[in-house]
Amino acid sequence: MDRYKVYILGATGLVGQRYVQLLARHPWFEIVGMAASEKSAGKRLAETGWVLEEPPPPEVAEMRLEKLEADKVPKVDFVFSALPSEVAAKVEPELAAKGYTILSNSSNMRMEPDVPLVIPEVNPEDLSLVEKQKAGRGWRGAVVKKPNCTTTILNLPLKPILDEWGIERVHVVTMQALSGAGYAGVPSVAIMDNIIPYIKGEEEKVVAETRKILKADFDVYVTTTRAPVLDGHLEVVYVDTKRDFGLEAVADSLERFRGLPQELKLPTAPEKPIEVKRQIDRPQPRLDRWAGKGMAVVVGRLRKLSPRKLAMVVLGHNTVRGAAGNSVLTAELMIANRV
Amino acid sequence: MDRYKVYILGATGLVGQRYVQLLARHPWFEIVGMAASEKSAGKRLAETGWVLEEPPPPEVAEMRLEKLEADKVPKVDFVFSALPSEVAAKVEPELAAKGYTILSNSSNMRMEPDVPLVIPEVNPEDLSLVEKQKAGRGWRGAVVKKPNCTTTILNLPLKPILDEWGIERVHVVTMQALSGAGYAGVPSVAIMDNIIPYIKGEEEKVVAETRKILKADFDVYVTTTRAPVLDGHLEVVYVDTKRDFGLEAVADSLERFRGLPQELKLPTAPEKPIEVKRQIDRPQPRLDRWAGKGMAVVVGRLRKLSPRKLAMVVLGHNTVRGAAGNSVLTAELMIANRV
Amino acid sequence: MDRYKVYILGATGLVGQRYVQLLARHPWFEIVGMAASEKSAGKRLAETGWVLEEPPPPEVAEMRLEKLEADKVPKVDFVFSALPSEVAAKVEPELAAKGYTILSNSSNMRMEPDVPLVIPEVNPEDLSLVEKQKAGRGWRGAVVKKPNCTTTILNLPLKPILDEWGIERVHVVTMQALSGAGYAGVPSVAIMDNIIPYIKGEEEKVVAETRKILKADFDVYVTTTRAPVLDGHLEVVYVDTKRDFGLEAVADSLERFRGLPQELKLPTAPEKPIEVKRQIDRPQPRLDRWAGKGMAVVVGRLRKLSPRKLAMVVLGHNTVRGAAGNSVLTAELMIANRV
Amino acid sequence: MDRYKVYILGATGLVGQRYVQLLARHPWFEIVGMAASEKSAGKRLAETGWVLEEPPPPEVAEMRLEKLEADKVPKVDFVFSALPSEVAAKVEPELAAKGYTILSNSSNMRMEPDVPLVIPEVNPEDLSLVEKQKAGRGWRGAVVKKPNCTTTILNLPLKPILDEWGIERVHVVTMQALSGAGYAGVPSVAIMDNIIPYIKGEEEKVVAETRKILKADFDVYVTTTRAPVLDGHLEVVYVDTKRDFGLEAVADSLERFRGLPQELKLPTAPEKPIEVKRQIDRPQPRLDRWAGKGMAVVVGRLRKLSPRKLAMVVLGHNTVRGAAGNSVLTAELMIANRV
Repeated sequence: MDRYKVYILGATGLVGQRYVQLLARHPWFEIVGMAASEKSAGKRLAETGWVLEEPPPPEVAEMRLEKLEADKVPKVDFVFSALPSEVAAKVEPELAAKGYTILSNSSNMRMEPDVPLVIPEVNPEDLSLVEKQKAGRGWRGAVVKKPNCTTTILNLPLKPILDEWGIERVHVVTMQALSGAGYAGVPSVAIMDNIIPYIKGEEEKVVAETRKILKADFDVYVTTTRAPVLDGHLEVVYVDTKRDFGLEAVADSLERFRGLPQELKLPTAPEKPIEVKRQIDRPQPRLDRWAGKGMAVVVGRLRKLSPRKLAMVVLGHNTVRGAAGNSVLTAELMIANRV
Repeated sequence: MDRYKVYILGATGLVGQRYVQLLARHPWFEIVGMAASEKSAGKRLAETGWVLEEPPPPEVAEMRLEKLEADKVPKVDFVFSALPSEVAAKVEPELAAKGYTILSNSSNMRMEPDVPLVIPEVNPEDLSLVEKQKAGRGWRGAVVKKPNCTTTILNLPLKPILDEWGIERVHVVTMQALSGAGYAGVPSVAIMDNIIPYIKGEEEKVVAETRKILKADFDVYVTTTRAPVLDGHLEVVYVDTKRDFGLEAVADSLERFRGLPQELKLPTAPEKPIEVKRQIDRPQPRLDRWAGKGMAVVVGRLRKLSPRKLAMVVLGHNTVRGAAGNSVLTAELMIANRV
Repeated sequence: MDRYKVYILGATGLVGQRYVQLLARHPWFEIVGMAASEKSAGKRLAETGWVLEEPPPPEVAEMRLEKLEADKVPKVDFVFSALPSEVAAKVEPELAAKGYTILSNSSNMRMEPDVPLVIPEVNPEDLSLVEKQKAGRGWRGAVVKKPNCTTTILNLPLKPILDEWGIERVHVVTMQALSGAGYAGVPSVAIMDNIIPYIKGEEEKVVAETRKILKADFDVYVTTTRAPVLDGHLEVVYVDTKRDFGLEAVADSLERFRGLPQELKLPTAPEKPIEVKRQIDRPQPRLDRWAGKGMAVVVGRLRKLSPRKLAMVVLGHNTVRGAAGNSVLTAELMIANRV
Repeated sequence: MDRYKVYILGATGLVGQRYVQLLARHPWFEIVGMAASEKSAGKRLAETGWVLEEPPPPEVAEMRLEKLEADKVPKVDFVFSALPSEVAAKVEPELAAKGYTILSNSSNMRMEPDVPLVIPEVNPEDLSLVEKQKAGRGWRGAVVKKPNCTTTILNLPLKPILDEWGIERVHVVTMQALSGAGYAGVPSVAIMDNIIPYIKGEEEKVVAETRKILKADFDVYVTTTRAPVLDGHLEVVYVDTKRDFGLEAVADSLERFRGLPQELKLPTAPEKPIEVKRQIDRPQPRLDRWAGKGMAVVVGRLRKLSPRKLAMVVLGHNTVRGAAGNSVLTAELMIANRV
């Protein structure tokens, strides 16, 4: 089949590089162009400070980055955006009005009621907001958002628990990877031999986005911290359920959890969106972040602390499942579902 | 005045080195000997792999380590023990029976009802168990324990909150320093670019010891993790109080908290046992672990999440306040109080 | 074709795990068994503390480890040994006498004149020592050694330079990865925020082995240090050549270098054994250690400091090219060459 | 005595903070003001992202930073400058012309023949250039430079070797700390689990400055790398001497080395400018960087590799001896010497 043409905005950041990595050899997509800030415009991708664990995909390593200009984006099927939120807030609506379908990583617009905020396994039905968005705004295109990385990793295991046992409240403490702050986000002098117990804006996002995604009104208490880890957000979660549960039943429910992407066998869908580890000292960021090619979350240390209190440790790859991978999977779902 | 004579058991480990550091220039104490494992016996202290941030105190750098033998410990006023728990379980009762007063860092005996488990600012009254212990066991000496490092750092700020607002339950997630596991405890290959979400035996200790120290029966839910930080345990704590609180009142209560060691102006007592940080991104292990010369805990990110739910981040130096320093302060209290 | 049967000694260490990873899906080899120390014997491989970046290969994850006993090793075509040298010194000769062909990672026997010490691209001719070894020792099998990891990574780029310009002397300073010391080799408390400027026995090995491999008598001055890096040894090398050189000619010679494994298209042979980086800040361990699937060394910062003084920075994956990968490639060469 | 009034330019950077730390309680100096970039101007020092291991000195914690304006610097005895070089290149000459004596950390002007580039123990005589500078430029004040941090740490041990045995050539490889690049200089994502084998402009500086300081024309071959270490530059040095040497004689010569600052008992002068370590695995950055309160360099691994080839490992605190401390000591020397 002819491949869908895609364009990447903000291709040189850490999430942008993941987009490139995931899309360059994707069976359904073809990268026809990439835009970046003025500093990188005109350079070949390979010259722009690629820092992922593998070199830039040869398919696009020689492609030249273009300067980001909304009226020069070529005609494509999907635009993947990893722009800084303040830039995205201007560029994305402009492109959507012109007819582009934008899968966006940026935090602007996430909480607007006509904007889908989608984890494909959890709330695929929210993609139907696209039609409402187009109609209400008079846009020919649309903006589809992925949640904050911490939210996505948290919501995947909460979904089957919510469905089977109900949730009263959740206490969360995260230890988040450096890549979540972008390439220059955390100076080495700030984080070596250290932990920083605050990430600007993060806690509010997790609370608000979780409610929007799960359509549930339980309380979410979150403390987010930055740890000296390259990739992989670890989250310690205490869940007060509405109904009593069995520990094995929870483990089983998490392991058997499947969503529409698995049903449709989408190319980027992990076989199991949630993997359950039985070893007592897992999940660990460095050992488990690549589960399901970075698209699965790994749950461990399942403990029943009282009749309706569950404890668990959750890990996910923040720039794959938590960012670029989630958007690519969403685009696949839109194609498969003809949204 | 003549100084009290002290002896150190297990002087070459990370906690043992802190004992040496704190006691070598202490105004009240004089180190008259140190014992270590067979491997180090006979060596000068300076030859035994000293790894603290400052060199061995010149006063004792040339002192030779003795082989640990219970019947060769000289007559001293206090024995400070940083032995592995399985060794301590044999040696400490033997020494206590003979008349030695042992301030011990090891986890054996901590939960026995006649054994004081003391944070000097929190439960100094438990030192009265010493007499009960001697009488009940027919010992001429006694064993006095310091709690697990994580427990000590947690209980200091819980104490004033408990006293003023009552506590219903506590959710805790820790990020603990490498030094807490001892010199060879965590291989570098295991922890670089990683977090390990499990520390053997730790969670059970925090729960049980907190109840013993605070004499309270609220629920304590704890998840302990190991992070790539040299010194300083960080603890994220959610406290459900019994009564509504004001955030400033809590901050004020923590800052004003003083205990018997402050009243008695003991040499190792920090002026403020609890420091409250107003900067939003504190406490941080590397920047705050030396508060009060390592004897203060630092509390930050105080938040009121609902009428009776408080969130805070607590930090303490695990081998000073959490270990050797707490025991030295306890010995000072015993002297001042003529226990 | 029928695959060659192989057995792994010391399968649970960091090099042992690399052997498993490389051999489990190898087109020519089939793992028929694995031995480990008493502690791991009887366990399934997946239960034994696997720490590589990818999970244990499913082909062997359920295979049970056997206790190392020289007289219970099954009949196989090759034995790959990652035993501690003091164990290897006893076991390997015993197995060789019985007829096993042993590809060994351990340092014992390396300098014996009838023992091949082989980098397949550099000195494949030394495999002919196998016949001499068998004859001289009356063994039915033989021991073939791979050099010290630092030696291998150094000698690959020295070889084409030696051949074209001659070498007078070499000054080397290394920054070596933690995995080179084995899983528990470097405590985290020892190396975080630190460098250790000494590795026991390493410098002597590099000097002696380089002379044996290159059959050259130039002076080698080496200082080896341990750095907080997981995988990948970095080596800064100053080469005094015998003849004047052009910088581009050297770069070209390194890039064009090919050996017998490339000629024979052996499965584990990297297309280019030496990759030359032009970016001024490369090679870097984290970004370049997987060049050629860990089998290529990467050279950068080529500088001409005086008419016959060349500077360069060399990087190689210490447990792949520097250890298990080099031995697997050697076995392939023995098969192809019918040694 | 009345204390000399000093002013600090660029007080919020890592070197600026060291200036503050060293000068706030200095027996001879009194900080009367501090200037910083527009971003920090008007803030109290304690509010500006202090990151050293100890909190800001209480003496100046509440002092407000001023905006850097050359015509608003108050009348002081010394100006200590930690400005970025491009800012310093404009501001320093302007201030010097007006009559200020500037002790500067920045790299501009270092190689100008009338500018002293001083390590107080090594080339105190070069302070006499101040008069020449004033006369030649018609300035009422003067600019005095400290060398690049790597140069200073290297030149201290080279000096006694040069004096006693002569030097033919030197090969150097450095592993430099993160603080040397400034607070935001090295992103954590760039350096974790990594080494970067290039530091812009550094190698050229070490070569040129060494020749100026030691007034010697031997060859200096340098490769500088960045390592994941907070403070403390490690340098592996091979010295080809002109005359044969005894290893103990070299150790002795280094240990006995004293300069004018020691003779004059200047307050910041370490008792021994060079400490020699006999333990085979020293110096190490984390354990040895505070030798002589950060003002001593530590030398270890002294080896004689051939009759006239010496190897050694050198360590120094890059922001103390390598930067602020060296300038403070220079100011003390100017006072004592009435320059």
